[in-house]
This record gives sequence, structure tokens and C-alpha cells, in this order.
Amino acid sequence: MKWFSVIQLLILLLANALLASADTSNHPKLVMTQSDVEKIRQQLGNVPLFDASLAAAMAEVDAEIALGISTPTPLDYSGGFTHERHKKNYAVAQKAGALYLILGEKKYANYVRDMLLQYASIYNDLPLHPKSRSYARGKIFWQCLNDANWLVYMSQAYDAIYSSLSSTERKILETKLFRPFADHISIANPQFFNRIHNHSTWGTAAVGMIGLVMGDNELVQRALYGLNIDNFSDATDDDGGFIRKQGQKAGFFANLDSAFSPDGYYTEGPYYQRYAMYPFLVFAQSLSNAGYAEQAFERNQGVLLKAVETLIQLSDNNGDFFPLNDAQKGMSLLANEIVTAIDVAYQAGQDPRLLSIAQLQQRVLLDGAGFAAAAAIAEKKSQPFKKSSVALTDGANGTDGGLAILRDSNESLALVFKYTAQGLSHGHYDKLAFSFYEQGNEILQDYGMARFVNIGQKGGGNYLAENSTWAKQSIAHNTLVINEASHFEGNYENGSQHHSELIFFDTESATAQVVSAQDLNAYPKSPMKRSMALLQLPGLEAPVVLDILEVRSSAENQYDLPFHYLGQPIDTNFNPLPVSPLESLGGDHGYQHLYLEARGSTDASNAKFTWLHKERFFTLTTVTQSGDELLMTRLGANDPQFNLRRDPSLIIRRKASDSLFVSVLEPHGSYNPVTELAANAVSNIVEVQVLTHTSKYLAIKLVMQNGQHAVFYLSQNSDFSANHQLQIGKEKVEWSGPFHFREVTHP
Amino acid sequence: MKWFSVIQLLILLLANALLASADTSNHPKLVMTQSDVEKIRQQLGNVPLFDASLAAAMAEVDAEIALGISTPTPLDYSGGFTHERHKKNYAVAQKAGALYLILGEKKYANYVRDMLLQYASIYNDLPLHPKSRSYARGKIFWQCLNDANWLVYMSQAYDAIYSSLSSTERKILETKLFRPFADHISIANPQFFNRIHNHSTWGTAAVGMIGLVMGDNELVQRALYGLNIDNFSDATDDDGGFIRKQGQKAGFFANLDSAFSPDGYYTEGPYYQRYAMYPFLVFAQSLSNAGYAEQAFERNQGVLLKAVETLIQLSDNNGDFFPLNDAQKGMSLLANEIVTAIDVAYQAGQDPRLLSIAQLQQRVLLDGAGFAAAAAIAEKKSQPFKKSSVALTDGANGTDGGLAILRDSNESLALVFKYTAQGLSHGHYDKLAFSFYEQGNEILQDYGMARFVNIGQKGGGNYLAENSTWAKQSIAHNTLVINEASHFEGNYENGSQHHSELIFFDTESATAQVVSAQDLNAYPKSPMKRSMALLQLPGLEAPVVLDILEVRSSAENQYDLPFHYLGQPIDTNFNPLPVSPLESLGGDHGYQHLYLEARGSTDASNAKFTWLHKERFFTLTTVTQSGDELLMTRLGANDPQFNLRRDPSLIIRRKASDSLFVSVLEPHGSYNPVTELAANAVSNIVEVQVLTHTSKYLAIKLVMQNGQHAVFYLSQNSDFSANHQLQIGKEKVEWSGPFHFREVTHP
Repeated sequence: MKWFSVIQLLILLLANALLASADTSNHPKLVMTQSDVEKIRQQLGNVPLFDASLAAAMAEVDAEIALGISTPTPLDYSGGFTHERHKKNYAVAQKAGALYLILGEKKYANYVRDMLLQYASIYNDLPLHPKSRSYARGKIFWQCLNDANWLVYMSQAYDAIYSSLSSTERKILETKLFRPFADHISIANPQFFNRIHNHSTWGTAAVGMIGLVMGDNELVQRALYGLNIDNFSDATDDDGGFIRKQGQKAGFFANLDSAFSPDGYYTEGPYYQRYAMYPFLVFAQSLSNAGYAEQAFERNQGVLLKAVETLIQLSDNNGDFFPLNDAQKGMSLLANEIVTAIDVAYQAGQDPRLLSIAQLQQRVLLDGAGFAAAAAIAEKKSQPFKKSSVALTDGANGTDGGLAILRDSNESLALVFKYTAQGLSHGHYDKLAFSFYEQGNEILQDYGMARFVNIGQKGGGNYLAENSTWAKQSIAHNTLVINEASHFEGNYENGSQHHSELIFFDTESATAQVVSAQDLNAYPKSPMKRSMALLQLPGLEAPVVLDILEVRSSAENQYDLPFHYLGQPIDTNFNPLPVSPLESLGGDHGYQHLYLEARGSTDASNAKFTWLHKERFFTLTTVTQSGDELLMTRLGANDPQFNLRRDPSLIIRRKASDSLFVSVLEPHGSYNPVTELAANAVSNIVEVQVLTHTSKYLAIKLVMQNGQHAVFYLSQNSDFSANHQLQIGKEKVEWSGPFHFREVTHP
Repeated sequence: MKWFSVIQLLILLLANALLASADTSNHPKLVMTQSDVEKIRQQLGNVPLFDASLAAAMAEVDAEIALGISTPTPLDYSGGFTHERHKKNYAVAQKAGALYLILGEKKYANYVRDMLLQYASIYNDLPLHPKSRSYARGKIFWQCLNDANWLVYMSQAYDAIYSSLSSTERKILETKLFRPFADHISIANPQFFNRIHNHSTWGTAAVGMIGLVMGDNELVQRALYGLNIDNFSDATDDDGGFIRKQGQKAGFFANLDSAFSPDGYYTEGPYYQRYAMYPFLVFAQSLSNAGYAEQAFERNQGVLLKAVETLIQLSDNNGDFFPLNDAQKGMSLLANEIVTAIDVAYQAGQDPRLLSIAQLQQRVLLDGAGFAAAAAIAEKKSQPFKKSSVALTDGANGTDGGLAILRDSNESLALVFKYTAQGLSHGHYDKLAFSFYEQGNEILQDYGMARFVNIGQKGGGNYLAENSTWAKQSIAHNTLVINEASHFEGNYENGSQHHSELIFFDTESATAQVVSAQDLNAYPKSPMKRSMALLQLPGLEAPVVLDILEVRSSAENQYDLPFHYLGQPIDTNFNPLPVSPLESLGGDHGYQHLYLEARGSTDASNAKFTWLHKERFFTLTTVTQSGDELLMTRLGANDPQFNLRRDPSLIIRRKASDSLFVSVLEPHGSYNPVTELAANAVSNIVEVQVLTHTSKYLAIKLVMQNGQHAVFYLSQNSDFSANHQLQIGKEKVEWSGPFHFREVTHP
């Protein structure tokens, strides 16, 4: 018996004692308690948002009841008929259970009972799902992950109707369905269950929740602390992620401990954070309702609730999540998982700003948490959630780099700057990349993922080859690419060992918000440092982004700095000469997917590019050197299945050793196709000048059309208390801290 | 003295007599009367939409008054500073005049007076505008057209403050500004003034309106009947349009008589119809207020009011006009000109459906017409404007082909089918082209024009070279192109002599709405006939489009039938093989702008292509023959200024003599990026079969996944009373009329 087994045994004994003291007979007890039910029943008809959600659920469930129960033989990938039917089954059963508790109508309990009995009658004879692609095949679905989804929802449905069932029925369900089901996604698939990964968060929550409902403490312990085995450390999953490192802890708590940074950032990014939040929160809520000794909400200074707030910060003005790492665009705060997150977090933490998100969602959970949120809204407790500039650490200890968002005071602009760790198997090779939003519109985009989730015709709705060959590659992001090779040469193992580092983050000033970070490992011989500022220039209608990227190298390299703009080119000063015919820009690392449409250059000190997107103008002004090329590219080469969008990019290409890239991104003016008025359609920046660039200081001057100018000073010393003096020509400037912004309104 | 001069003289004498009998001293008298003013003043504060419009105008005008008057020396094209400033001047002056009348505040009258006196002080010394591109240069603007805009608005401003001015001030304005201004855009530029064209509509309205205000009947007559000269019949304008044909009438009435078909369709299309409606309607209203003998509203069975209704029909679910011929996308019912059109037409015709459009616009004119509309809305007289299937004739006599719109009963789908005349200088070579909309989204697009109106960086905001080389060409439209040459070989003179012809239009049936048209001249050796049906197939969620295109030719041709879809390709059955590198598809007639991305073919009887756009799926199923190629193309070749959008197309290419193209366009299902659910993502059409195709009959069978099928029978005899019998295999069908649709719900 190994040492950790002894500890697990001790914990098991302790927990059993605690569980025995709790009331284990009363149901419901999982996400809803008997006292929740009573409170809700008393207030029916008095809480508009809850009543509306109830009515919507009734309409949906009643329609499904009328349609009849169907549990077809599993055949399809996601998007296919059997997959979608079983997925719908668990969602509807969970709602039917809630309706039964709230309304007391037996038809809902019968519906759930009959469905579960039907599953019980087929489950033991089901072979592994016929699709063999997954590293952990389910029985109802093609992967254990979806089976775990099923069990998380069905646990709630079973809990809801538990008291209405005969002991014979319970016995059938528990012995023929739930227990073997839980064993399949844990004991039979340790490579799925015993990981630190969103898959295991779902798996452990599923096993733990059915354990709580059945009063089966062995399952709860298995869920909380994982399986007592450790023999699969070199394997990888379908996405190329590592299964588990030697000696790593497992189970729900281990996932919780390692999933979030102290700031509540989930290392895979917000798309998967949204996905993982649901099992984290419903199992946490279940443990809380069960009065379990070790609670999830309090763990790690309440990081679970912090993570909900962080998820909201990680969305644009439309509530769409920033598509960092593997992420489908359009996923938003309106998702089911976020309805759960908001309601559960509100009930647990009473943050009134969460209520404004619930109002946006226009629905609540049909349980105590949803009722608490709806009732608080009816009592007008809701407060707006003001998104702000924020720096979030990455890594369980908050030491693995992070992510910064700079926002203006109007919440119109958002600059998302990424200096995180790799982000597990869903991470992209995008060190020091950024993206930029105006009024919720993507202006400089992060491509997101190459996948059409649940659209069967597109590779069964799974990740497409172009996700690896394009979406993950460095050139697909707004960051520097050296010698046409991705960061870490696109090697996952290598990338997983490193992270970028924050140098400083300062958003105290209304006119200059600044974040600076570096990466020393993406290109070991070429350390990179990027400093980004949101600057309010005198007389300009909106702040501009100042982007300063420094790279060091003793050897000459080819640098490509792409700007993945969206919109219609309006003007350039670099005379782009069309290339004909169109060929791909390179052979690998994503370059094989880019067509070079035109190539330009300029003798001027700055290259300028203006484009129009969603009725707004934007201009990029970048400091150029002799020999710089401006490449106009278009995505779509080597894409035989038409899986990629035909999006454009502007790439600054330079051959140099040590080098400095300075660019200003300026939102300006508007175009209205109805009045046909173009306002402020021309850039207000006359010139961007590098005044000095030494090992200690950098000074950038921005000269404007209105005759005014401003200078941004950056010290290589990030100490906020350090004092600096800098003389450039006749001008002497003094300041303290890592940067200084000086506006000269009367030249 | 020529014969028409004698008639003009007689009319002049008659009109003078009538004008003398009207009250010529009272002002306002143009778009607003003294009785309008009194009515409005009495009801101020009681009519919400009017009060809101008034408040908005006050805010705008007060801000401009604070800014001070500026009449800079004319320098720029549209989009440039001086152009936009003078444009703003006339718009603000017109509003200030209205505010003076309604509120009686002297500051508004003074503002208009001072601005007009400032113009009067510079006008006579102004040379021709320095930009020399126009065939008719203005003095304030680069073209007389914009000068005419100025005068139409300034006439209203002058009328409003007329009574507040001293006779000396009036004399200065009339002798130094208005009279020479009117002469410049008429006598000095007959090639502009004496045409049948929207330019002349503006020009004549401008001259006529200032004539009415000044009580100068000679100007009014000049406006109504044109200049008595005829010496410029061979010239063309900036867009290549003919100036005037020999012996053609001129003047406002001649424009009105020839501009609209009896159905109120304007031959240049809705974008220019919108532009022309303003001078038509405000001058018509002015003539009405002046009690003028010959009225515009009653002329030609009230076609002016009919034209307003037609314009509404020519918009999609968002109120955006269908971008037929030269048209900027996004122009909509919200335009200023349409606010005028709706209010004036409501006052003149009292159609309560127009009020719902005024509600959409959320503002009204600050005159009697606007007040009438706002007051009627306050009295809850508004009724919805239900858009419907409609066939509109083209040409002054309604004999020059036309345009049909097929809409389903939900107003979700709109098929726009064009068999018009050339459409003057703004016409495209797009005989028998169609476009398709779902919920206001373009699914198969009409490209519109290659122009960025008023965006100075794009060729001064004027028409771009690509408008001729791409946007006007046949291949840019969803219609047949033979041997890579546009209709009429892209020759305007030739195209202007012909039009397509309606064969029949029948939208009586709820399950089959059909329109059929032919063109015999676009390719004189290859007559084309296209029949389009909106068919409700049994069990399908939405109607499908059946597209039947027949072309006759004794020689073998290359046929290209493009479908300019918008969206993301999801699936095909024709194995498109990527082409590398990308080269343009051809050398001329628009082909030089298309890249060939991939080329496919299929041995199956149908080629199928599914795409996703705005969260909806669409499938095109087309009957293929051996040798057919499916070309996946992308716009953007030979576009050095990046003036063209990178839009995709699917082109069916066939080499044949007589040939038949049969395709079904099927909207189906949906995708939700938040729930990640793909519903009904796969086409429901199993096969489209041509059962028979003879010189008399055509029968198309549509077989569905649900086991049901339907047959569409088309007779080459378009007589609605003709009886038909057709035996195909064992099945004998009888019907009367040009088509028959038979659904077989139990196979």
C-alpha cells in the first residue's frame, strides 16, 4: 500500500463519519433542498424572472413529454441524431425534475422515472460507443466526457424524483444504471477520470453528485480525491494534452486547486472556463447543501466565486467571451453554464452586480439559487457590472504569467494582452499576443479555433486539422514570429514548461494605462518584451493603443509582426503592389495557409494603414525602417475543405537582429451608410517618432494633426519607486516609476 | 420659332395668369404654409413624434449657431472638408428656417439670413469649382448636381425667413445669389438641366422652387418644361449615360412622366429612386401649396404616391433597399429623403400604413406634412405595412420589362428577380438575375456598387474603376454568362435599346408562387428564359426556391451560372479540388477579378452545396450533367487598391448548346453559437429530377428525405386559361394555366 493510499483511507473514514451525521434520507438534497422547494412554492407568481423561467421550462418539457421518450442506440458523433437526442434527454430530465419539485405534478416525475428506467434497461448491454476516436470512449456518447455531462444532469433529475420512487425502482436504477455508469467513467477510464483537466472536472463532479444522491460515500470520496492508481503518465488525449504527470494529485479538489489562478483565471481560457464552471459550481453547491465537511466555495480564498467575476471580465461589450486559445466565437454570458454560474455564485456570495448579468440572461435556474437571484432582482437589488482594466494571474499559484485587459472609462475599447502559460492542450502558441475590441466588435482579432462545434458535416463537429496547422500557430495571432517558426517551434511539451512574465501593470492614470510583459522562452535566443498603453491624446475623440515590441537577438532574423484586422482597407501610404498569381506565404507553422495578396514599402518614417469596419475607421501607424516590407495577406491557402475564414492581415516584415517595433492603433470617426456621411475619416496622427532607445530608456513621440503632441517614456526599470531623469535634446524630463506620459497641448 | 416653343409660350401665359391669381405675397408658401404654421404652433407639446423631431433639430441647429457660419472657398470632392461644410450649411439652414417658423425665435431667422448674405457676397466672384471631373461643374460643389441640392434646401430656408427680411436684403439675395445660381445650373449647363435623369430632377426642382419663392414665373416655367434648346444629343455624362435624345422633352414634368413606371418603379433602381424622390416630392408639395394649375401628385394616376409605396416594397426586412444597379448597401428607409417621402405622401394620400414607416424612422419633417404624420400616429391611426409578393413594370409606359419580388407569408424570405430595362447610366448588365434574402440577411447577394460614397480616400468618394470592371458586369450577378462575355457585351448603347420581358407572374397559391421572364437580346443568338418559384414542400420548415433557366443556342457555348452566396461553406458532394497558385478566372468582363479557388465535379445527378450564414443553413441542389464543373471562386484579383470585397461564389460551368439549368435553394435549420446546437443542418432534398423537357412542357420532381415528393410542371404556353394534359410514365396530370404544382405527401 502506497503512502497516498493510507492518507486516502484516513480521509475516507473521517468523511464517512461526517456523512453519517448529516441527514442522508431527505431528498431533494443536491442542488435543491427541501427548504428551497418550500420557499419557491410559497412565492410562485410573485417573482417575475423565476416565473418566466418556469413557464419556459414547462413549455419545453411538456412538448418533450408529448413527443415521447426516445433512447436510441448510440451511433453518432456530436451533431448527429443519437448524440443530440441523448443530450436533449438529460437536459429535459433535469428540468422535468425541477418542475416536479416546484409544481408537484406527477407527470414530470413519471417522465423522468420512465426515461431513467429505459436507460437502466439498456445500459448494461451497451457496448462501447461505436465511434472509436476518443482516448476515453463513453457508452451513451462517443467520449466519456459527454457521458459525464449526462450523469451530472441525471443526478439532479434522480435527486428530484427520488422520494417519489419505490425502493425497487431505486434499486434498479442504482444497480443497473448509475453505479455501473459511474464506474465506467472512473474505474474503467482512469485516463479520463484521474486528470487535471476539464474532462476530469466533469467526471469527478458526475461521480460525486450521483454518490451524494445515492448516499454512496465511496463514490463521493472517489470523486473528491481521485482513483488510487498512477500508471498512465506518458499518454496524451485526443487534443494532444498530457494525461497526467507522475505523482500529481487527482480528483475534484485537486482539479479545483490547480484549475484557477488566485485571480480566478482558468488556464485554458474563458471558453473552456465557461464549460468547466458548471460542474465546479453544481458540485460545490451540492457539497454545500449536503453540509459536507470540506467545502468547495471556501477553498483557496473563495476562488470559485472569484472565477465567476473573472469570467464576466473576460467578455466583450456583447457579453461574448474573448476567444483565447481554442474557443468558438459567439460563446457568451448567455450560455446555460453561465446562468448556473451567476445564480449559484449570487446565492453563495450575494454580489448584487451578478444580478445585472442574470437580467441580461433573462432567465434563472429552477432551484434555490435561481430563485434567490430572481427574488433579489424583483427587490431591485441589481447593480450594474462595470467592466474595468484588470490584470489576471495564470497558474494555480498565480506565478505563471497572466492576462491583462485595458479598458477605457467608457467601456468602449478593450485591449486583451496575453502573457499566460501554455493553457494545457487547448493553448495556442501566442506569447505576448493581443486583440482589440471597439464597442464589442473585433477590430484586431484572435482567430479562435478551427472547429464547428456539433456541425456534423465538419469532421463530426470536432477539432479540424486546421486548428493545429493554423489556429494554434503564432502567425495566426497578433504577435511576433521569428524566421517563420511558431513559438516553441509549436512543440507542446516545450511550451508547457514555460510562461511569459508580467513586468508591470498600471491603470491608475486616466490618460495612460500601461501593461508590460516579456517572454524569454518562446524563442530562447530572442527574448521579447511588449509594452502596451491605452493613451488619451489631447483633442482626440478616443484613446489610442501604443504598442512597443522589443526583441533582442545577436543574429539577424526575419521578423513578422501581423495585425489581423477585420474590415475594408481604405488607404495606405506604402503602395501595396499586387502579387500575381497568389501563392502561400510559406510552407509551415501556419504560413502555408496565408496568401500574399500584395507587398508594399515606404520611404516615409511611418507606414500607415486605414480600414473601415462596422461603420468605424481605424488607422495603424507604425514606425518603419529602411527595408521593411508591408505584406497584405489573406487566409485560405491549403484549405481543401474550406474550413478557414478568408480573413485579411497586415504583416510588418523586417530583417534585423535587435529590433524595436512601435505602432499606434487609432480608432477614429465613423461612416453612416444611410446619411452617407464620413466623419473624421482620416488619421489624426501625423507621425510617430522614436526619440530615444537605449538600454535604460525608450521615448516615443506622437505628433497630431491638431498641432499638439505627446511623449511616452518607458524605463527598463519596472520599480514604481525609482526616480528617472532623461534629457533628449534640450528637453529634460523627470518622473518616477516605469513610465511617464507627457501631453504637450500648446506646442 | 420651333413648334414646342409656341406651346411653351402658351403654357407660360396661362400659368402666369394662374400664378397671378394665387396669393404670391404670403410666405411661407413653399413646403410649409401659413396655415400649417398656425396648426403646428397650437399643438406644440401635444404630438410626441413631432416634438421629439423639433427637439433634435433645435439641438443640431443651436450647436451650429454656436459654431458660427462658415462658407469656405470650394475646393474638395465629396467627403472633403469644403464639400461637407457646404452640404451641412444647406441642411442646417433649412432646419433653422423651419424652427423660425414654428418657434418664432429671431435667432434662427438671423442665422439663415446671415448665411445667405454671406453666400450672396461671394457667389458672383466664385469661379467654376476647381475640380474639373464633372460634365457639369458647379460653383459651390464640384458638380451642378450638388449645387442643385443646395438650392432645393436653401429655397425652403429663404421661404421661411422671407417675411422677416427687408426688401433690400431680399433684393441682394435674389439678384446676387438665387437668380444667378438658378441660371448657372440651368442656362449655363443645359447638358445637366435639360435631361431625363435624376440630375435634372434635382436641377428643375431647384430652379422651380426658388422661382416659386421669388414669385419668378419664368423660372418656374423653365423648371416645369425645360430649356428651349436641343443641341447636345450625343454627349454622355460622367457615368457614361446619354445626355439627351433628339426631340426628347425636358423639364420637371417630362422627368416625372418618364421616371416612373405606372407601378412606381424608377428605372435606375431603389437607391437612386430614394435620391430622386426628394426633389419630386418637395417640388410637388410646393406646387400643391402654390395652388398651381398643373399638379404633380395627380399626374399619371398619382404615380408619385405609388412610387413611395413601391420604394417600401423594394426594401428588405431591415428596411435596407435591395441594391439593384449602382447602389450602396445599407441605404434604407431611414434615409432623410424617405422621411420626406413618407410624410409628404401621407399628407397627400392618407395611407395609414405609411405611418408605421414614420414610426420606424422615429422622426418627421418640421412642416405641415411631418406634423400631419406625427399627429396621426398620436391618434393611433398607424397600420402595419405588410410587404408582399409583387411584380413591378419598368419604363414610362410599363412596357419595358420589370422586377418581381416573391415573399413568403411570414415575410421571412424575399426573392428579387430582375427583368428590367438597362436602368440608364446606373444600370448593370444583369438580365434575369436574382438575389435572395432570409430575415433581411443577404443569402445570394447582388454585389451593389464599387464605390464608397463620400469617403475621400477612395477616389474622392466617387465611382471606382471596379464599378465598371466588376460591379456592372454580368458575372457579378446571379445570372447566366455565355462565353465569358457580359450581356450586350457590356455595351451601354446596345443594352439601352432592349429590355427583358415578363412571361407570367402568379402568386395566388400559398404553396407555389411563380414568376417567369425571358430575355432575347442580351445574347442575340442565345435567348434565355428563367422561371423562379417559391414552393412550400410538404413537411419542410420553409419554402424553397426552384430556379429553372433555359437557354437556346444552335452553337456550343460555355455557360457560367454563378451563385453569389454569402457565408461559410459547410459541405459539398462535388469534391472541390483546390487550385494552386490562385489565378484569375478570365481576362475581361469581370472574370479578371475572380480567383478560382477550387474546381469540382460529380457523377451524381445533382451537385449539392451547403453553407452557413448568420446562424442559418442553406443548401443549393442543382441538376448536373456529365462534364459540368463546379467552380469555387473568390473576388479580389486585379484589385490593386483593395476596392472589392473578398466575397465567394459558386459557379456552375457547362459546355453545351441548348441547355437547361435546374436548381433548388433550400433554407434549413439553424446554428446557435451559445447553445452550440445545430438543428436541421442537412438538406432535406434527396434529389431534383427533370422528368421531362420538351418544346411544350417541363416537369421537375423534388424528392425529400421524409419520403414525400412534389412535381412542378411548367408549360411553355403562358395563357392562364389554356388547359394541359401531360403523361409521364404511368402518371397523367391535367391542369390549366402556365404551371402546376403537385405535392405527393403519401408516396
